[in-house]
Amino acid sequence: MDNWLQKRTQLTPQRLALSFHEQTWTFQDLQQQVNGLCATLQSRLSKHGRVAILGNNTPKLYFGILALHQLGEPIVCLNKHLTAPELQYQIADAQVQTILTTQKFLPQLQAVANVKQLIALDQLKWQPQANWPAQPTELDALASIMYTSGTTGRPKGVCQSYRNHWTSALGAELNLPVTESDCWICAVPLYHISGLSIVMRSLLYGMPVRLYEHFDPQAINQDLVHGRGTIISVVPYMLKKLLAKKHEPYDNHFSYMLLGGGAIDQATLDQCDHHQIPVIQSYGMTETASQVVALNPADAQRKLGSVGKPLFPVSLKIANTKQSNQIGEILLKGDNLTPGYLNQPQRLTEKTTATGWFRTGDLGYVDDEGFLYVKSRLAELIISGGENIYPHEIEQLLNQLPGVQESAVVGKTDATWGSIPVAFLVTDQSYSLTKVQKFLMDKLAKYKFPKELHLVNHLPKTANGKLQRVELVKWLETNE
Amino acid sequence: MDNWLQKRTQLTPQRLALSFHEQTWTFQDLQQQVNGLCATLQSRLSKHGRVAILGNNTPKLYFGILALHQLGEPIVCLNKHLTAPELQYQIADAQVQTILTTQKFLPQLQAVANVKQLIALDQLKWQPQANWPAQPTELDALASIMYTSGTTGRPKGVCQSYRNHWTSALGAELNLPVTESDCWICAVPLYHISGLSIVMRSLLYGMPVRLYEHFDPQAINQDLVHGRGTIISVVPYMLKKLLAKKHEPYDNHFSYMLLGGGAIDQATLDQCDHHQIPVIQSYGMTETASQVVALNPADAQRKLGSVGKPLFPVSLKIANTKQSNQIGEILLKGDNLTPGYLNQPQRLTEKTTATGWFRTGDLGYVDDEGFLYVKSRLAELIISGGENIYPHEIEQLLNQLPGVQESAVVGKTDATWGSIPVAFLVTDQSYSLTKVQKFLMDKLAKYKFPKELHLVNHLPKTANGKLQRVELVKWLETNE
Repeated sequence: MDNWLQKRTQLTPQRLALSFHEQTWTFQDLQQQVNGLCATLQSRLSKHGRVAILGNNTPKLYFGILALHQLGEPIVCLNKHLTAPELQYQIADAQVQTILTTQKFLPQLQAVANVKQLIALDQLKWQPQANWPAQPTELDALASIMYTSGTTGRPKGVCQSYRNHWTSALGAELNLPVTESDCWICAVPLYHISGLSIVMRSLLYGMPVRLYEHFDPQAINQDLVHGRGTIISVVPYMLKKLLAKKHEPYDNHFSYMLLGGGAIDQATLDQCDHHQIPVIQSYGMTETASQVVALNPADAQRKLGSVGKPLFPVSLKIANTKQSNQIGEILLKGDNLTPGYLNQPQRLTEKTTATGWFRTGDLGYVDDEGFLYVKSRLAELIISGGENIYPHEIEQLLNQLPGVQESAVVGKTDATWGSIPVAFLVTDQSYSLTKVQKFLMDKLAKYKFPKELHLVNHLPKTANGKLQRVELVKWLETNE
Repeated sequence: MDNWLQKRTQLTPQRLALSFHEQTWTFQDLQQQVNGLCATLQSRLSKHGRVAILGNNTPKLYFGILALHQLGEPIVCLNKHLTAPELQYQIADAQVQTILTTQKFLPQLQAVANVKQLIALDQLKWQPQANWPAQPTELDALASIMYTSGTTGRPKGVCQSYRNHWTSALGAELNLPVTESDCWICAVPLYHISGLSIVMRSLLYGMPVRLYEHFDPQAINQDLVHGRGTIISVVPYMLKKLLAKKHEPYDNHFSYMLLGGGAIDQATLDQCDHHQIPVIQSYGMTETASQVVALNPADAQRKLGSVGKPLFPVSLKIANTKQSNQIGEILLKGDNLTPGYLNQPQRLTEKTTATGWFRTGDLGYVDDEGFLYVKSRLAELIISGGENIYPHEIEQLLNQLPGVQESAVVGKTDATWGSIPVAFLVTDQSYSLTKVQKFLMDKLAKYKFPKELHLVNHLPKTANGKLQRVELVKWLETNE
């Protein structure tokens, strides 16, 4: 296939491609910037090592991503929140030779032992130029590598091919078409699949992206009010913040919010309805190159708690079940599924069934109408006396209690029951143990009752803000 | 991938899928009809022979197409205008065992020597049923076979894979998104790629199709006026008829006409502008599974004579040229290109360059902005009312007639049909017009019949003895 940026520029050169504060670039402007950057970068890139990106969502990082694509280089996406040892591991694992970044991150990166070459894109000078002999886009070539932590072991580099991105973008388009009047606000990180998938969609759909360096709810609300953006990717935290800061109705052209990274609660959903904000709840992961299951706004109230139906190119089934409504592991198949983990081919084999289905490690069920409900991560399943306990279910209850800010439930080894559920709570002054017990009493089967409650100041989390249950399990083991 | 109809039904069961006169079917209704038909057909289909369809655009033929897909059977698309000898050849070539048709065509088909089983869908009884174990859609499997004649020899069966149809539909969607409020009018034959591609788009987009048994400009205009259709595929002949019969403005939701099968003239384009009818002119062929190049309405006046730019998944170049505006053979690459010709693998090899580009046989150039202009059909194809006519096929027959020493067939511009076939004959005394007509009658589909016969002393040729068709075309133009 032709190089995607070049193809898009040939098709719609004058269409808006990118905006950032008051600056704008058409696809032709973008192409010229990227061509110029390619010319400057080419001689500096080694043929022996990979190239990574690390930084905030800035136009220069955006150009950098497209320049790497045009140079035929897979993009290693590094999380800016990582510590030096975490970065060191990923740089070694992905054989990164060069990191494209900005001045701001130089001190942090210079402290990492195995960094070979740092290029601060905001210090680099280049001239926009009309032509560049771009590499064609080979659909099965490696486009990007993103690390996921998983629940155990070292982070794994998830390989994403261009076919993964292509299938993902087209699956989304078949679900809810993006039209010429749409503009996608990108305030999620470009180094996450949530952000990178917006860049890919922009090229394929010919759609402008409004880029945000940081999540700024006031400014974004203003954009949505004045029609400077019509679609936005959010996680629950962002959605709530936008609602809290919203004082004016959004523009008539406002289309929807695409919600990933967790379920939405009834109160928030009601608020969205009240404000006439369509929300597409979705399910996906780095291994699936963005959303694979989506719940359209029309079904949101009727199917509360569901993440929707699998997109057109995606096949989904629940392992070892023959009827709807039975819980089992969620299995996926389709061209948006990763071809594998970097340097760990056995990992994908482990995660794939004999007939080629990808094991997500998540538990869920599909109702009679084909809507998926994600019940819990298989990796977190607590089996106590033969009964399955899903931490999420208990946490949701605990979080409703006055005085409880956050909670986490994990399994603790138990001589009698195999494992017992144990809760960690971040609380404030209004917390009372009696209330907890009273509250849970009639809501939870006894075997699901947390057998211990630990009050803590904060919960252990990864740089991405993902709860590290394994740390809590470790703490329990060493503090007996 | 999941079976397309089943997937679509799971996603949007209640959405309108098909309408015909006053009858309508949701995707769920359609699914149940198709399931029932599958159950009835399965035992009747041989495992050794292929299944063909032949008939008018009726709902039952529509069900038949989808049932074959669901049974994992490639669909051999037979043109209802073909004569017995023409059908006999294609049936033998494609090893057709069974033909799905309707009562109306039984006499015509019973006269074909090698027909083994005829099933009249309008005589067949079946019960709609909820479930059927459909075959998954393997993207690289053979979906359909359509015959084209080409310049030399016998008609060739063009193989179309599901990947061809998938890529074609998505390329069109990336060009001009079809939204939930659209409905596509299908008055072009289902056995042509123009019609079959509408069926495929319907499944992939979740879009209703309004089916017409015959092209009925008054009724279609009424549909467009009252919003019962928003998009329609037309050939120039149909577009002109619609304009001629149009007395009221089309509904606000009217989207566009997709024009294939030949260029549009300035006067017609002006009329479309006057009536605010957006027209997408396009270029494509059976081998490319519908349009590969499209001219959007916004560029239509500025780029008169162009067929537009290659769709996103399609790569296009002009052979042996280095600059824009130079004429050469149009070469194509992309996943919508046929994997080959049935029983004639060498034919595709002949048509493909060393680097994998498909040689269309058409001459054209690309201007500075990337717009394609088709200058001439290298293969001298005559397109008459949307049907492809290959002069060679007619000439071969004419040359068999006693009294005919040589013949040449060319297209003559025609206000109604776009082009009509006209024959030039070099004859001797034994020639008789009556014999010609009698001879051709049962051998040649009516649309291929030469509408004029010119007796000449010799045919214009180059020094090498190569026929100069262009001289005959010029003669026709100056002798009207």
